[in-house]
Amino acid sequence: MADRNIQVTLANRPSGWVKESDFKIVDRDVPKPGAGQVLVRNLWLSLDPYMRGRMNDVKSYAASVQIGDVMVGATVGEVVESNNPALKNGDHVLGYYGWQRYGLSDGRELQKVDGKAAPLSAYLGTLGMPGLTAWFGLIDIGAPKPGETVVVSAAAGAVGSVVGQIAKIKGCRAVGIAGGKDKCAHVVTDLGFDACIDYKAGNLMKDLAEATPKGIDIYFENVGGDILEAVALRLNPFARIPLCGLISQYNATQLHGLNNLVLLLINRVKLQGFIVSDYVDRAPAALAELVKWVAAGKIKYRETIANGIENAPSAFIGMLKGANVGKQLVKLA
Amino acid sequence: MADRNIQVTLANRPSGWVKESDFKIVDRDVPKPGAGQVLVRNLWLSLDPYMRGRMNDVKSYAASVQIGDVMVGATVGEVVESNNPALKNGDHVLGYYGWQRYGLSDGRELQKVDGKAAPLSAYLGTLGMPGLTAWFGLIDIGAPKPGETVVVSAAAGAVGSVVGQIAKIKGCRAVGIAGGKDKCAHVVTDLGFDACIDYKAGNLMKDLAEATPKGIDIYFENVGGDILEAVALRLNPFARIPLCGLISQYNATQLHGLNNLVLLLINRVKLQGFIVSDYVDRAPAALAELVKWVAAGKIKYRETIANGIENAPSAFIGMLKGANVGKQLVKLA
Repeated sequence: MADRNIQVTLANRPSGWVKESDFKIVDRDVPKPGAGQVLVRNLWLSLDPYMRGRMNDVKSYAASVQIGDVMVGATVGEVVESNNPALKNGDHVLGYYGWQRYGLSDGRELQKVDGKAAPLSAYLGTLGMPGLTAWFGLIDIGAPKPGETVVVSAAAGAVGSVVGQIAKIKGCRAVGIAGGKDKCAHVVTDLGFDACIDYKAGNLMKDLAEATPKGIDIYFENVGGDILEAVALRLNPFARIPLCGLISQYNATQLHGLNNLVLLLINRVKLQGFIVSDYVDRAPAALAELVKWVAAGKIKYRETIANGIENAPSAFIGMLKGANVGKQLVKLA
Repeated sequence: MADRNIQVTLANRPSGWVKESDFKIVDRDVPKPGAGQVLVRNLWLSLDPYMRGRMNDVKSYAASVQIGDVMVGATVGEVVESNNPALKNGDHVLGYYGWQRYGLSDGRELQKVDGKAAPLSAYLGTLGMPGLTAWFGLIDIGAPKPGETVVVSAAAGAVGSVVGQIAKIKGCRAVGIAGGKDKCAHVVTDLGFDACIDYKAGNLMKDLAEATPKGIDIYFENVGGDILEAVALRLNPFARIPLCGLISQYNATQLHGLNNLVLLLINRVKLQGFIVSDYVDRAPAALAELVKWVAAGKIKYRETIANGIENAPSAFIGMLKGANVGKQLVKLA
């Protein structure tokens, strides 16, 4: 039997928490490439928090996914049929084919990746968008100086885990915030953070004060809500907050940003929202540095892998609830 | 009868709205200058929103006023007795003697001002701390470009009125937000803003949308709360928010910062708290520009004047409630 292109499409716009029924599994023929086109069999699908935003119908930096459309997302795959002279069968490529087993395009947006230099999945994590997000947010917006204290939320996640390790490379004290003992043990023991606070333990303020005796100079924000409120109370004068994500808010029906904004005023804090795609021109240089650090063992990473496209919805919901450690991936083949 | 030094001291730390009973009027002898000291008869006292913060017992960039201490504040006065060779009787000086009729010091912190170049009171307003606050917040943090839309809250106040006029000088569309028809008429007719929204009229979102057809590129924040929430919905990508004040929060028992922080993320907005005293090295150059603009009639200003030190508390409370137009002063002599 010929292979099938299984896709995950958006069935409903979620209200509050995403449910599996907000997605639909669709079975389609594998498309045939036309003139100049290339067919890619996707091997890995990246699941990322930003995708939750694309499920809403609001003005944003990127278009919403429409009902019935394939969910968006980065993929790494293998060229299996090519009418494009720039790509040949067996080439490994990074693309944005979304939640489906096959991708068809003219190949212009594809980027060749080298499976010998690093595992293919790494191009979706530490050596991909999440790693670059960590690099630009921390280095460009945070501008860490040796001896400063860097706190990062979702510290065991794909972005946060890299943020803390770069902070260490830059001579800073790195403090993570994560949910659960196991994640915190991983962050300190495996990734080398100086401390990690389990926000689920119920002593956030006290634990944060103990872990940041000199206050907080940089807070790399992935989460928002109560955690931001607690961190704000420990910010030093002239602190910086690279605002990367607000995962606590994406499924919230009642928004909670930062009530105590006065603290940003009196401490002259800079809070800066950013999106990694704005830094595309400088991505190669940052990526080269990440590759060097991974090769030198200075940046380590872990992956959480779901198997099969049909399991993408449950893995995505799990990630939004913090079930993953490190980069959340779906293995497609 | 010899003149008396009437002072206003802090009687209680306010909880919620400041009351007149939080202050105490104290009658003291006029002090005698010792060796090297100078006695100044204060002519003008500046009342500013930041003073509300000094009444609280919280860690901030500046020390709290202690119970029983004279309230802090900038003053312009005349030297009436001097044992300091650098200052002579009749010199006019800008100082920080606070809420009292006389000031005594070694004179080192005093700055001579020229009553012929500008009215003495202007050195507490457009040519003083509020004018410099507008300059550094808008130009340094806001970095306005011709054609951009600048929105400023408390637009009829000492800082906001200058912000909008500098925005016009820089080729921007200037939109004010103020409380009441009269203030808005003043902002547009006298100060030359392109539009002014009366937030008390009850159509904030609709009026803001009409006044900012191309969205908002810079929001100079003096107020916070519901106004910030409404402005956030109209921010353009890469908008800047110089965070100068949050007057709606200073007497609030329930804080309201910004719930919809997600908007700062998706629009890559920079929000930057600042305090004018951090720019002291560059103040002379900025002041020279303000002097030039005032002389050329490009920046106009209005003052609201209370008479007599005993009326400082009620004038201060009125200012926090928005009773003033332009710079709030107390005439002391």
